[in-house]
Order: sequence, then structure tokens, then C-alpha cells
Amino acid sequence: MSSPFVPGTAVRLPGTPGGPLTGLTFAAKDLFDVAGHPTGGGNPDWARQNPIPTRHAWAVQAMLDAGATLVGKTITDEVSLGILGENAFEGTPLNPAAPGHVPGGSSSGSASAVAQGICDTALGTDTGGSVRVPASFCGLYGIRPTHGRLDLTGMLPQAPSSDTTGWFARDAATFARVSAVLLEEAIEGPLPARLVIAIDAFGFADLAAAEAITPILNRLKRLVPDWQEEVMAPQGLTTWSRAQRTLQPVEAWETFRTWVERDNPRFAFSVARGLVMAAMTPEADRGWAALVRREARGRLRHLLPPGTILAMPTAPFAAPKTALPLPEIDGIRAAINVLCAHGGLAGHPQISIPGATLDGRPIGLSLLAARGADAMLVRTALALESI
Amino acid sequence: MSSPFVPGTAVRLPGTPGGPLTGLTFAAKDLFDVAGHPTGGGNPDWARQNPIPTRHAWAVQAMLDAGATLVGKTITDEVSLGILGENAFEGTPLNPAAPGHVPGGSSSGSASAVAQGICDTALGTDTGGSVRVPASFCGLYGIRPTHGRLDLTGMLPQAPSSDTTGWFARDAATFARVSAVLLEEAIEGPLPARLVIAIDAFGFADLAAAEAITPILNRLKRLVPDWQEEVMAPQGLTTWSRAQRTLQPVEAWETFRTWVERDNPRFAFSVARGLVMAAMTPEADRGWAALVRREARGRLRHLLPPGTILAMPTAPFAAPKTALPLPEIDGIRAAINVLCAHGGLAGHPQISIPGATLDGRPIGLSLLAARGADAMLVRTALALESI
Repeated sequence: MSSPFVPGTAVRLPGTPGGPLTGLTFAAKDLFDVAGHPTGGGNPDWARQNPIPTRHAWAVQAMLDAGATLVGKTITDEVSLGILGENAFEGTPLNPAAPGHVPGGSSSGSASAVAQGICDTALGTDTGGSVRVPASFCGLYGIRPTHGRLDLTGMLPQAPSSDTTGWFARDAATFARVSAVLLEEAIEGPLPARLVIAIDAFGFADLAAAEAITPILNRLKRLVPDWQEEVMAPQGLTTWSRAQRTLQPVEAWETFRTWVERDNPRFAFSVARGLVMAAMTPEADRGWAALVRREARGRLRHLLPPGTILAMPTAPFAAPKTALPLPEIDGIRAAINVLCAHGGLAGHPQISIPGATLDGRPIGLSLLAARGADAMLVRTALALESI
Repeated sequence: MSSPFVPGTAVRLPGTPGGPLTGLTFAAKDLFDVAGHPTGGGNPDWARQNPIPTRHAWAVQAMLDAGATLVGKTITDEVSLGILGENAFEGTPLNPAAPGHVPGGSSSGSASAVAQGICDTALGTDTGGSVRVPASFCGLYGIRPTHGRLDLTGMLPQAPSSDTTGWFARDAATFARVSAVLLEEAIEGPLPARLVIAIDAFGFADLAAAEAITPILNRLKRLVPDWQEEVMAPQGLTTWSRAQRTLQPVEAWETFRTWVERDNPRFAFSVARGLVMAAMTPEADRGWAALVRREARGRLRHLLPPGTILAMPTAPFAAPKTALPLPEIDGIRAAINVLCAHGGLAGHPQISIPGATLDGRPIGLSLLAARGADAMLVRTALALESI
């Protein structure tokens, strides 16, 4: 267990006075450029070969312009390839809500810093679950916005067709303030008219996890009385997962291949293994996965017309213990991906809402909506907190 | 370029007075146990999980008992999985004979320390070429003894059916003194009666490399006038290489699998990739490779009756530049393996003899003999030096 901040870095940049986020502090995952500081990407051989950025990433600049003060750069899984938040080079940030358990990743340090109260909010990235999962594990609000909505300039890419910038907060009001700035949209307007409960996702989660989030779900039903249960993925959430676990690593390999082949960088074994397997993915598997993605997009578009939200568990269980053996980690990652794959595949906005625990460890309830309906999700979180 | 010694280590153990190696200094590759010091194995996550040894490795003890003084532990490629001598964690030991070029590996630091004159001799290990190649690249005498001849207690294994303990020296006399101790056999007796020149191995080497070692080969012909040219591997040196590159990584994966799965250790990408590929090797490929190994053993037994030696280039070229891109390194490693695979496959003793250069960089001539005829090879090296 270690600090949420990247070892050896120290940065503090005051926000512009008088903005909507004045008085708030934030941290940025070490995938975001901060001018004058190396972007480490969670790997000792990444920063070395890249020039020190001369401009802030778009999201960092937007937060500073809105008045928030940057207080640090946070640990990430290596080049965002991880979901548990254990970085062999920089350490595992503390999960204060479940000590001895992982914070979730890859936005591990951002979630940890917010959960510890070190800052009010923090920027993360979510390609395959990297904001949603740490939000769930640390008991935070977290958002994966509509894919393509935010300007990702200055954010280290992984798999561009799935990459998003997200953020965390401990309370709904702060979450809404930050969301208004980064979504560039007021968090005002009607609540959802209809609620779909994804019974396949609830069925895939551990029974105890599904039961633990039922009280929040029941409050949500009171807020949105027109609800019904539906299968989210008739093709199978596992089919969607297989497609995403084909497409995303292949794209990541395309992103990092030049660097890997030039510098032969150091990685934890599991990270290197993922890239090796990606490099060997047959073209036929990629083609199949792209078709499944198309089918999944059609399904979610059908399921989530404007005004509808979908509820599902963010992850199938609460935070696992740290430092598990690799075969166990592999099983955990695979199960998490089953409940996260739709995000990267279809690009709908999703928020994870805290409030439930299982054996004392947080677990989150996730809400999805139509593409572009990010603000409606944030409004729902606000309304749900006061019901 | 860095020191040949493992960073952060310092060890000096005087040898027992009055022995045959009194006055000599030696270094030990960081795969050999030295009591009271961690055996690092060239990887930051290896030493951490292994107890500090309480006894010296057999070879270290034998050197100390013979009077040699231990002056340091030397850098190795990570858990001996490498042939160029570039360690991303500990640095690339200087090749003083070819600055800007790799020292060869995995016994990189041992070769570098001897070549720099920091010590008189040094212990290495050779599974797939890890003494022979650095001897060739650094311009040293180096031996891979008959497989199974030396006691390997206290030496970190990689692929036990191929692992050997070897050593380096700058001159034939020192090489012979150390060899007598570690082979536990006087370097006395007749010279070889017959010389086989492996025309396929000479043909596979770069033409300039083959030409560069021709003057030494001609001296050898004067020493052993009954010579003839023969094909060493009628099945193809490349077939032997493919078999060894199937069997050795699979065995290495068996050696390291428990550690890798428990600790998810850090590796340079290329090292992790080798283990991943090994883990996926189909059983049918292993079966085929084992048959090729058997065929190769039969061939070398036939080719090398007692009293016969075989001459071939140690490596197909002189030391390549440091820090090449991975695709180039992959091609270089593959080519080197074609001239080294017989060692691990068949276990015959082999020495690499210095004395030739190509564009100023050393290249070695290798001599093989019947299993157990290690001392005859050393005698040949001594005789050749004075012809």
C-alpha cells in the first residue's frame, strides 16, 4: 500500500479565481499531460522516451480554468492496462474503504486520493472499466462519459475507439459541479422516465453483491416508477466481453507497438502477456469481434432511447485482496470485464453510484443512458442521494 | 554501458591460501549463490522472494578452495533468458573490445569483467550459448563443459536438461589452470588426432566472419593435420535450432512458472514474451523437438568419437550494436541460436577461442569434442596459442 501519487512527483497548480469549481482540489491520473512535468503513464520506460509536455491536457486545463486547484499526479496501472490498480513499479494506492484490498484500476491513484479525502475530485480514464471499477471498489461516484464527447487532447491513449476521460467524487453535489464543467452542460432538466433493470448483469454478479445493491436499486425504483426487467445482452454478456477483450488489446498493441519494439520496455509479466497475446490475435477473431460490437451497439441503442436509464451492478463483486496469484487475478479480471465490456463496445455514458457495501467493502450500482444523456445520469445521482 | 557488477552489491572473499589458483581473482555471475548475499538472478523481483543463501554454490566453493579470490557478483540477463547481455534493470556491461556493442549474454558481466581486466577469470552459465557467445563477442576463452559433468548445486537453474556452469579467461594458461580445478582433471594428455570442420556452420556464419576466423582455423589445421570438412547437421542447423528453441523455453517456463504466477514479476517485454510463448507451446511441437534432439545427439556422437574435435564459428557475426529495436534483436537472437543450439541439445563440451577480429570486433572459433573430453579441448587451446 502506498501513496496515491506517483513517486517522485510533486505538482500544485492553483485554478483560475472565480470559476465554478473555485475551492475544489483535484488530482490527475498520470496519463494526462501537465505542462512541465513528464507524463509517466505508470511505466518507468514510458516517460523516458517521451518529451515533457509543454501544454496541459484539455481536461486538466478545463478544471484549472474552472477554478479547481491541481494537487498531484496519480498512479495508474501501466499504460492503463490493468483493472485492479496494482502497479509493480509505483505501488498499490490505498483503498481506504477496504484496506488490504485493491483500489481498482487503472485510475487507481485518482480513486484512492478522492476516497482518502486528499482532494475533492480527480481525473481518470476509462477504456475498459478504469473509472467505473475503482469507483465501485472505493465507494465513489464515477463517470465514463459518452465516448467521443470530451476532447482527449493530451491524454495518453490506449484503445482510441474505447478511450474516455472520466472523474470521481465522494458526494453527488461535487460530482455534479465537476460534471457540469467537463460535460460543458448544466445538470438541469427532467429525470429519466423509464428504468430498465439488466437482469443478466444482476444474474452474473455474485449473489451477495446483487443483494447488497438491491436497497439502492429499490430507491431508484421509487425515483423512476416505470421500471421493468430486461436482458441487456441477448447474445450474452460473455460474448460482448470476448469481443471487447479481442478488440481492445489489439488496439492497445497498435498504440504501443512502436514504443515496445523500439525500447523493449519493462512491464509486469501480466501486462507484457496481454500485449503478446494481442499481437497474435488472428484476423478472423478481430472480424468476428467487430461484428459483435456492431450488434451490441444496436442492442443498447434499442434498449436506451432518450429518457430511459439502465441499472446494473458496476462489478460482479467488491474489491478483491491485494497481491493475489496471477491465475486468480486472471479469473477476477475476466469476470469484471463481463460487466464492463459494453462501455468500450458501445460508448454509452455510465455512472457508478456508491452507497452499498458487502462485508464492509463498497460496491457500486451503475446507470447507463442514451449516448449524449450524460447529464441526465448525473441528475439521477443527485436526486437519488436526496430520496 | 555500466559496471559489470550487480548494482548495490559488494563482495570480496579471499581464497584458501596455497591452492592451485592462488593469486587469481574471479567474479561469479549473479546466478551463483554466495553465502550471505542475495542471488539476484538479474531481475529485481527474483531476489526479493528467495531466501539469502547460507552456502556457496559448488563452483564458487571450488574456486575459493583452490585459492582464487572472489571480487564480485556480475550482471546477468534476467534469469539467464537473453543472449545479448542487455539488462533493462541493471544495465549493459561494457564490452571493452567493442565499445558501443553488446558484451553478449547471459553471462554478460562475467565476460565484461574479465575482458576489462577487473579479474582474471569468472564463472558463467551456458544453457543456450550464455558463455560461448559473450566469449566470442568479448574476445575471451570460454567453455561450456560436458552437460552433467559439474555439480550445479547453488546455481540458479533455467532449463536443467541444458544448463551448465562455464568460465572465462583472457589467456590460455589461466584458462587451463581454472579448467583443471573445475573439471577436476589435469590438463595433460594427447592432442586431438582428427579435426572436423563444420562446413554448414561456416556456411551459416556471415561470410566476413567465416573469413576472419580462417587464419586461426589454418593454425588449427597445422596442429591437427588430419582434417576434413563435413556437414555437422544433415537435418539442418536451423532444424536443431527450432528444436532447442522449443524445448529450452518450455523447460524455462516450468522452472519459473510458480514464481511468475505467484508474484507477477517485472520483466523486459522480450523476456516476458518468451515465457508467454513457451507457456503456449503445443504438445505436438514439444514431441517433435524431443525427437530432433535425439537425432542430433546421435549425429554428434557419430561425428565426435574420442580423439576428434569439430571446429565451427562460435557465433555468425561479431557483437551487434547496443539498444537495437526489438525486431532486429529478434533476428539476431534467432541467427545466434542456429550456431548454439547443439550445445543444449546434445551436451557436448565446447570452448570458444579468441584471436580473430572483424572490423575491430572479436569473433571466436569454437571447438567441440566427445562428451567428457573437455580437457582435450583446453589442451588444444593451449597448444594453439603457442603454435
